[in-house]
Amino acid sequence: MTHIADLDTPAVLIDLHRAEANLKRAQDAADAAGIALRPHIKTHKLPYFARRQIDLGAVGITVQKLGEAEVMADAGLTDLLLTFNIIGAAKLKRLEALHQRVTIRTVADSAECVAGLGATFVDPGRPLCVFVECDTGMGRCGVQSPQAALDLARTIMATPGLVFAGLMTYPAAGKYDLAAKWLSDARAVFADAGVDIPAITTGGTPDIWHMDEAARVATEYRPGTYIYMDRSQVAAGAATLEDCALTVLATVVSRPTENRAIIDAGSKALTSDLLGLVGHGHVVDFPEAKLVGLSEEHGTLDVSACARKPAIGERIRIVPNHCCPVTNLFDRVNLVRGGELVETLDVAARGRVD
Amino acid sequence: MTHIADLDTPAVLIDLHRAEANLKRAQDAADAAGIALRPHIKTHKLPYFARRQIDLGAVGITVQKLGEAEVMADAGLTDLLLTFNIIGAAKLKRLEALHQRVTIRTVADSAECVAGLGATFVDPGRPLCVFVECDTGMGRCGVQSPQAALDLARTIMATPGLVFAGLMTYPAAGKYDLAAKWLSDARAVFADAGVDIPAITTGGTPDIWHMDEAARVATEYRPGTYIYMDRSQVAAGAATLEDCALTVLATVVSRPTENRAIIDAGSKALTSDLLGLVGHGHVVDFPEAKLVGLSEEHGTLDVSACARKPAIGERIRIVPNHCCPVTNLFDRVNLVRGGELVETLDVAARGRVD
Repeated sequence: MTHIADLDTPAVLIDLHRAEANLKRAQDAADAAGIALRPHIKTHKLPYFARRQIDLGAVGITVQKLGEAEVMADAGLTDLLLTFNIIGAAKLKRLEALHQRVTIRTVADSAECVAGLGATFVDPGRPLCVFVECDTGMGRCGVQSPQAALDLARTIMATPGLVFAGLMTYPAAGKYDLAAKWLSDARAVFADAGVDIPAITTGGTPDIWHMDEAARVATEYRPGTYIYMDRSQVAAGAATLEDCALTVLATVVSRPTENRAIIDAGSKALTSDLLGLVGHGHVVDFPEAKLVGLSEEHGTLDVSACARKPAIGERIRIVPNHCCPVTNLFDRVNLVRGGELVETLDVAARGRVD
Repeated sequence: MTHIADLDTPAVLIDLHRAEANLKRAQDAADAAGIALRPHIKTHKLPYFARRQIDLGAVGITVQKLGEAEVMADAGLTDLLLTFNIIGAAKLKRLEALHQRVTIRTVADSAECVAGLGATFVDPGRPLCVFVECDTGMGRCGVQSPQAALDLARTIMATPGLVFAGLMTYPAAGKYDLAAKWLSDARAVFADAGVDIPAITTGGTPDIWHMDEAARVATEYRPGTYIYMDRSQVAAGAATLEDCALTVLATVVSRPTENRAIIDAGSKALTSDLLGLVGHGHVVDFPEAKLVGLSEEHGTLDVSACARKPAIGERIRIVPNHCCPVTNLFDRVNLVRGGELVETLDVAARGRVD
């Protein structure tokens, strides 16, 4: 059996025990809260874990890009929610092809988006289900008010080949109460109008342990990062460092000064995502070390606080600030159990940017 | 012929006219300064442009990772400088394999690194040429003083299968005078000791138009970003926006408010590299727009200052803050001339992280 020590660096390690525990804990919490779980595969981009999420009880998966949907459909996943406005002829054609072979639903936050979908999906016998995306505080996509959500739902309902599937939101991290208020208001507006909301889907790992509160206003939860967790989720209080399943294995390649160590993982391995944090990751083996700088292929550690300082050739593991884009930088990830390599997987949906 | 309008988004466009002008201008400046040019391929990661750089007069290419070297050697490039400490048995074996088939030289900044190279390369009849990396102000890898450079050069010279190739530095941007002082001091220290320095290689696009000054202390220059240029190089004064050859083509997918537009390019297309800049890129078609936020697949534009605001479905081009990691995120780039697509190339050395 291959040992981690035999892997060349930089490399992504996925601790299977931790990933499995994270998946189970979230599924259990969803089950207890009575809310459906629809994991977002943008984090792992692997059919392997998508299937595991389904096996554990997820109702389906969430994808952010058509390319991800195509990879997952090819791998046998059959129930997909695409939480991204599909605009333009090329993408509408691809969505149509997916709709022929799997259950895929999507979102819209404008009449323009609905019009494009409505011009492509014209068969009331096999309609496309469309959620109205709601901006409940994130400040990204989404209609701006419950009334606007109702108006757009009616536009969808008035389009022969489309079905109004419900409301979808990606709430701002830490502001689930704001999202709950918005969705609660929307439910009232829709109820007053006599329009049924078939489903309300929300999400986000930062607030995943408040799924019971989400369940009061929503029917479905779409977390992504929870499978691996990362330094930003630790900062958000959603995980401990011991929950973090993804690490980047790197080698110390230089010790130019007493207090500086250089590793072979830079922004092309760890990304430059800060997400409000100071430093570029947590060094598992030298927790006192600070990952103070990244260039493309070098990481700079300040090891002044380390009692023992890492030597040239020594391998260290880093919990990145944000695990999702890290996965997207590597062609392969290594599933490990203890110090042993269990399997190396191609990141099937990596780089599926469109 | 395919038009840019037929490309799905997000997509990378390379303006061939601009890229060619950037390549020629730098080669001409190197020729005028009497310094050899050894372009760093980390920016484009394409044999296509590496060959063009050689055709224009470059003496060889620079690579940062063994994986990049392997791709370039496979593509027929024959003279490579690997500016990264090679540590560990797996990488030494790969370096040895490359050394069998192309001219490859590398660097070291420690006795440990030299010892690893010396244990692998043991044939004085076919020695490995090794530069001493010098920290001339960047604060990354490199020996810390000219005396330390001399000591390490002597260690290399005392190793049967190695040859001292000279000094290598990556100077801090905008501090070429600091690097020049360091290298000038080193030349004096080596001269006093009677040790010849066969070559001195320096680099960096931010100071590329000071190559004539670099030529006073160095024999070779290794710029990377100059082929495409980007917003950070414009900020550094090394380029104008009209020199920027790489843009990311994106589609406006949402207009949730009067002053907000959302595009389908986020940090997985543009990276979150800020490099000291405010905002995540320059919007070519709407220069008054501000790219104020990125999530993984969404970019948020503040279009409040735009006289005409972009509509849903409209395509816009963005000059990224940092073009090198953008190339690394896309499987393919599109070479364009005017509005026409000339060729789509696989980014051959993308993701070669080790």
